[in-house]
Amino acid sequence: MPAAPHLSPTDLAERLSGIHPELAILGPSELAGRHPGEHPDNFAGGVMAQPGSSEAAAALVRWCAENNVAIVPQGGLTGLVGGNVSHAGEVILSSSRLNRILVVHADEMTVEVEAGVALEALQQAVAPHGLTTGIDLGSRGTATIGGMVSTNAGGILAFRNGVMRHQVLGLEAILPWGEIYSDMTRVVKVSAGPDLKHLFIGGEGAFGFVTRVVLKLEPIRPHRATAFIGVSDATAALSVIRHFRSQPTVTLEGAEMMWPRYIRDHAKLKSFDLSWLEDDAAALLIEVSGETVEQATGVLEEGLETLWEAVGLKGGVIAQSLDQARKFWDIREDSGFYYADIPDAPSFDISVPPTGLDTYVAGLHARLRAIDPTYDAYVYGHIADGNLHLTLIKRGPLPKAELLAVEDAIYSGVQEAGGSFSAEHGVGFEKRHGYESNVSRQKQALARTIKQAIDQKGIFNPGKVPFA
Amino acid sequence: MPAAPHLSPTDLAERLSGIHPELAILGPSELAGRHPGEHPDNFAGGVMAQPGSSEAAAALVRWCAENNVAIVPQGGLTGLVGGNVSHAGEVILSSSRLNRILVVHADEMTVEVEAGVALEALQQAVAPHGLTTGIDLGSRGTATIGGMVSTNAGGILAFRNGVMRHQVLGLEAILPWGEIYSDMTRVVKVSAGPDLKHLFIGGEGAFGFVTRVVLKLEPIRPHRATAFIGVSDATAALSVIRHFRSQPTVTLEGAEMMWPRYIRDHAKLKSFDLSWLEDDAAALLIEVSGETVEQATGVLEEGLETLWEAVGLKGGVIAQSLDQARKFWDIREDSGFYYADIPDAPSFDISVPPTGLDTYVAGLHARLRAIDPTYDAYVYGHIADGNLHLTLIKRGPLPKAELLAVEDAIYSGVQEAGGSFSAEHGVGFEKRHGYESNVSRQKQALARTIKQAIDQKGIFNPGKVPFA
Repeated sequence: MPAAPHLSPTDLAERLSGIHPELAILGPSELAGRHPGEHPDNFAGGVMAQPGSSEAAAALVRWCAENNVAIVPQGGLTGLVGGNVSHAGEVILSSSRLNRILVVHADEMTVEVEAGVALEALQQAVAPHGLTTGIDLGSRGTATIGGMVSTNAGGILAFRNGVMRHQVLGLEAILPWGEIYSDMTRVVKVSAGPDLKHLFIGGEGAFGFVTRVVLKLEPIRPHRATAFIGVSDATAALSVIRHFRSQPTVTLEGAEMMWPRYIRDHAKLKSFDLSWLEDDAAALLIEVSGETVEQATGVLEEGLETLWEAVGLKGGVIAQSLDQARKFWDIREDSGFYYADIPDAPSFDISVPPTGLDTYVAGLHARLRAIDPTYDAYVYGHIADGNLHLTLIKRGPLPKAELLAVEDAIYSGVQEAGGSFSAEHGVGFEKRHGYESNVSRQKQALARTIKQAIDQKGIFNPGKVPFA
Repeated sequence: MPAAPHLSPTDLAERLSGIHPELAILGPSELAGRHPGEHPDNFAGGVMAQPGSSEAAAALVRWCAENNVAIVPQGGLTGLVGGNVSHAGEVILSSSRLNRILVVHADEMTVEVEAGVALEALQQAVAPHGLTTGIDLGSRGTATIGGMVSTNAGGILAFRNGVMRHQVLGLEAILPWGEIYSDMTRVVKVSAGPDLKHLFIGGEGAFGFVTRVVLKLEPIRPHRATAFIGVSDATAALSVIRHFRSQPTVTLEGAEMMWPRYIRDHAKLKSFDLSWLEDDAAALLIEVSGETVEQATGVLEEGLETLWEAVGLKGGVIAQSLDQARKFWDIREDSGFYYADIPDAPSFDISVPPTGLDTYVAGLHARLRAIDPTYDAYVYGHIADGNLHLTLIKRGPLPKAELLAVEDAIYSGVQEAGGSFSAEHGVGFEKRHGYESNVSRQKQALARTIKQAIDQKGIFNPGKVPFA
């Protein structure tokens, strides 16, 4: 942590005003009325700098480095692990005015964007070219490209296209001493020395502030068919997924599984008809694209017929309209529905190789019950890449000792199975226990060494991963 | 560079013997009879350590760190930029005995291998599971997985599957102080703090020695059809590529372009029939896979018929047998054919966004002729991802000033076009001029900072990128 500047937020805002003409500064009174996003303390710092250009962002960082003022980078504020929480004396560096789509290279299927562009805004901007992003996620309306880079976001297409890291061809970032790091490459083949952009991708704002990104794009596949299917377990779901991935005439666009308690509680809340789903079965949302809606629907219907007996499907329903398909997706994507009943319930985000999912889930329920026989969890997620979201069905916050026990129950066996205790949400500061107990000592030390070498004053996002 | 140990290679070999039971040591006499691979000075150090386990490799690195002896990592010795060159007083650390395929996770389509496994050996080992690697390249017989990781290899499938960085799920490496960095994750979704394995991928041995790798695999597509097509330029080739990539019933497996001088000189040398190719046309090798050979061939034939007039194809021939297809590929992959006539000819490896290829190639010829009116170049490469290999048709080595002028002519406009002066061969020490004149000052400085922080004694691969 840098030496505290002993400046109140109001004084800090005043000092920052005028350091660059393209830098807007909001003080505590301007921030007071704004929604802080997913964490109530995101705006606790009370001062926000909104650069309108990379140069303005660089000027802000330079000033902070010279004055030992810490910086908390912020994008769409959809982060779930406290990575954007700020404190008095720190400056929030927001990408909200870096919101230009710079160049669409339609023939190349690439785009250059500023970091503050929201995912859905980008999708809408490239749609007239017949293109879309190779990555998609539920919070597309607010999540920004810069934030998605910083957390190495995954989402619903990662089983096919990889994660954000695999979609980024180039980027520009502001280094902790205020220089602009520019590497706006638009090709996939680059072996020009160590590829340092991968420090910023998934770096959670510890190494700099991402200002621009070059992303790969892919053709829009608008002709979709969507089904909800009952499955007994993840193994059955993976058989369904394997079938549709191997059909040459459709492309799998989504495979989202919801374990029984999640699908039933959510359906009840939304009055969503579950009469098609057998008792005790989990639900699998499957979407494919094809040449036409009819052709995609045909392949989906035929496939489910073929799989019905072989896999032992537990019911199913195919969406009869785009509106119905949207309602299917809402059951999966509006996953915060349970917080009304269990505010601050501890939630987690792990990945294991998909073939290990059933073993993991069975063990998880046993481990939770060993802590407290009443414990249960909502389990759902991106089944094709082994990424599960897990929420303890209990109002939070838990007492610290109990929370740590729950975390250990959630993470148990994950690394050994070849997975990760944090799949796509990152570490921030809330997953510090998971990081310290699941990431090897060598990797933690190496991350600290690099952090200290690059950000000698500890300017960027102090108190968060890698906890230097 | 570490302090010189003032040990002769023979003395060094003697000191190293016995530091670990699984560490074989070869001295100057044992190395004398061995082929040094692509660079004559690879074995100039005269001492090679061959660990049989990660622990033995760690023991060797620990000893070297304690004794200030530099280490030159070596794999299959297919590197083309001098990244494996060693000097007296340095220890070669070879992966040659780290050659076990550890676990094939067939259901997951992943494999855990040691770094010294050759690409083709891996392909053969996973073939019985119906699987193959998502990356392939001409030197598959000798190039090792560890070397391919260290140079972020690309090859012929990168347009579809990305480069080595996109195929690696996890890895293990020995850090410069001799500890084992283990991150053998098998999932694509990992946001567990900064993903430091990307320092080792493409790090060219500057940050540690890769010992184990987890790679993604993909289904074998054995039913192939292969054609040679005449095209007027890269724009025409890209139209052909776009057509076959958009056919749902075949998968594009290769798209390799050879500009006129390359295809004609090589065909002449090999007595390869070019009667199908119109004068002045370039050649495009296209391979697709399908349900059966007949079906793939049918789609290829139909496609070429459709494209013939529209794109203005300049002739074409479809392989009638596997043997003939292999001869087509040999014309592309045996690209060293010209060195008999022009030994030590300067060669290069650049990438630009594919839509910029024609502009680049036209400009290149003009720039070379501006240096010397007799200059010409062999141009060929992985057209679909914009990666060109370029060889000046002139016996080397050139006088230094002339070489630098040629390099500047080759690299001119590449970064501005969104490309890279080094696409897949790396930097080693031979491309130092390219690195220093094409990579931003900030990136070079950042790479040096990280190198110095991690490898404080400069143990790993001194004198090569990032030139710390």
